[in-house]
This record gives sequence, structure tokens and C-alpha cells, in this order.
Amino acid sequence: MRARLLEATVECLVERGFSGTSTTLVSERAGVSRGAQLHHFPTKNALVVAAVEHLSDVRRDELAAAAAALPTGRRRTRAVLHMLGDHFASPLFVAALELWVAARTDEALMEAVAPLEQRIGRETHRMTVELLGADESQPGVRELVQATLDLVRGLGLADTITDDARRRRRILDQWADTLDAAIAAGAGPETTGAHAPGKDDR
Amino acid sequence: MRARLLEATVECLVERGFSGTSTTLVSERAGVSRGAQLHHFPTKNALVVAAVEHLSDVRRDELAAAAAALPTGRRRTRAVLHMLGDHFASPLFVAALELWVAARTDEALMEAVAPLEQRIGRETHRMTVELLGADESQPGVRELVQATLDLVRGLGLADTITDDARRRRRILDQWADTLDAAIAAGAGPETTGAHAPGKDDR
Repeated sequence: MRARLLEATVECLVERGFSGTSTTLVSERAGVSRGAQLHHFPTKNALVVAAVEHLSDVRRDELAAAAAALPTGRRRTRAVLHMLGDHFASPLFVAALELWVAARTDEALMEAVAPLEQRIGRETHRMTVELLGADESQPGVRELVQATLDLVRGLGLADTITDDARRRRRILDQWADTLDAAIAAGAGPETTGAHAPGKDDR
Repeated sequence: MRARLLEATVECLVERGFSGTSTTLVSERAGVSRGAQLHHFPTKNALVVAAVEHLSDVRRDELAAAAAALPTGRRRTRAVLHMLGDHFASPLFVAALELWVAARTDEALMEAVAPLEQRIGRETHRMTVELLGADESQPGVRELVQATLDLVRGLGLADTITDDARRRRRILDQWADTLDAAIAAGAGPETTGAHAPGKDDR
């Protein structure tokens, strides 16, 4: 019943946005009584944060399973980036976007959302480093991994306005080649020794 | 009076979000009568779209003026990227983000927002090409310019949750060096001839 409520919440966020999502609507859609719903999640904020957390755990496990099927060798980077690009254009990203944007002007929601955003950011960063086989002790590599994640975040945002899959694919193919070349070359002429890995990973 | 209304609208979007913005609140903040406000902008949608359009025109002119002071030579790419990064972390980006996200689940708003988003996207792309002196007839260069803009969009989104200026600076410094190297090297080993410039610039 808990999972059903959380999945209905994500659907509501995607279809109606944060302001169009209500606990009544979610309990109706999930086919769960108001009483049972309030027992599990006493407030709308508790419900929406739990929903994004739940779906991100599910998607993380799905990504880990999909990662096992990725090619090795010279096509790997492109495959990893397409996987990430699709992940950031998924309903989870849309639901999370609704939450992040609402939290910007809602202090109570921000208190719950900020730690979740940080945890998801750390996990996604770690997964990306592993999938790319990136050595972050090399100068500039950490920044390039972060840039890659900020790129797919930006592509995900663009995809919410227009279906952007074709453009995204072309951009990520080029980014993959540039990333491979930069890492092979030691990340760039001006960076050696200049950018020690920072502490604020996200 | 029109400009005062539009500036008050952007302030409202930044402080209270799309759902917290009302025409009443805006006319109070601008010190403009309800009647005069309704004469200029009969609906909330007309007001918010005009506001983001107005501010993006103002900011475009400001950017063009600031661009004249950018350094030439090897520090130019970093300077251009910092200017773009700051632009995508400005109140204009936040107000536009509120609009884009609300439009996702509001058909009438989307009809007004989609053409505006496309126009701003095209203008920003053209400006970036000029500022970087990028030759988009070279394979891969167009995709790298698009990637740069998607990167700063992703960085802008990250900045709405936490103040991200330090991390953004490090990432953009690294990307500037990688971008320069990629363009100097002909954009990457696998791209020559493979990616003709596309038509869907944004």
C-alpha cells in the first residue's frame, strides 16, 4: 500500500505539477482510504518527499542492473552518457524538478528536500565515476564528471519543454568523444596541478 | 508603468514562485492601480510571459555590453563561460524556470512560453557562438556550443537549491580548457564528418 501511494504521488507530480498535487487526489488514484494515507504520510510534504526518495531508490537499482549490460571498449562512454541522459529525461527527473522548484519558495519543503537532493547527487556522482572508470585523482577529471552531470541535468530540463531526444543524442555523442580525449590527454593544458579534487561532491 | 509592472512580476516569481504570484500582488508591489494593470495585461499568463520576455531583452543588452569588456586571447573562453554561468544563475533564470515548469502542466501557458523559450534559446546560442568565435562549419563544434549551454542551464538549476558559485567556477574553468582543446584538435577523434550541423538550433 505504501508503494502504491508513492507511485501515485509521482504520477500526480508529473501530470499536474506540485501545485496540482493533493493528498486527496493521490489517495483516490492509489485506491487507498484517506485514513490509511494519513497514517502513512500525515502531510503533503511528507508524501512528496517520500515519493521522490522511493522512486530514486528504485531507479538507482534499475540503473545498476542496466549498467551490467553496457558495452566495454571505445563505445562505452557514449553508452554510459546515453543511459544518464535518458535517466535525466525520465518521469523521476520531472517529479524531482517539481519538488526542487517548489522547495525554492517553501522553507519547510526545502528542509526535507535539500538533504535528499544531496544524497541523490552524491550517489549519482559515485555511480558515474564507476561507470566511466574515471580516476578522480587525476587533475580536472572530477570537474569533468561534475560537468557531465550538470550537462545531463540541463538536457533534462530542456526535455521538459520539447521532446529533445534527437538533439540530446547528438550532443552526448560529441561530449563522450570530447570527454574521452580530455581524460586521455590529462584533462587539459592549463589544469595540471591547478585543480585538486574538491570536497563538495554532489 | 509597463516596465514597473514587469519588474515587479519578475520579483514576485523569484520570491514566491509561479503559484504564489498573482496579478493583485504585482499591482500592489508596482504601485499601479488594478485597472491600469488589467489594461496592460488582462491575465496572469499575459503578465508573466511579458515579464520574462522583457527581462530577457534587458539582460541580452546588458550581456552584449559586458561582452565588449571581455579579454581576448587564452583567457577569453573562461571569461565567456563565467559570464554565461552567472547569467544562468541570475534572477532572470529563476523567473524563467518558474514559468517553464508551470507551463509543463498548463497548456495555455505553454502556448505562450514555447515560442519565447525558442527565441531566447536561439539568441543565446548565436551570442555564444560569436563570443567564443566558434566556427560551426567544423564538425562537432555546433554540438559543443549546445553542450556548453545545456551545461550552464544545469548549473543554473543546481544553483537554485544551494549557492553553487564556487563549484560552478571550478567546473567552468575545466570545461573552458577542455572546450578550447577539443576545438583546436578538430572536436574529437570520432566526429570528423560524422556530425553535420543540425537544423534545430536552440
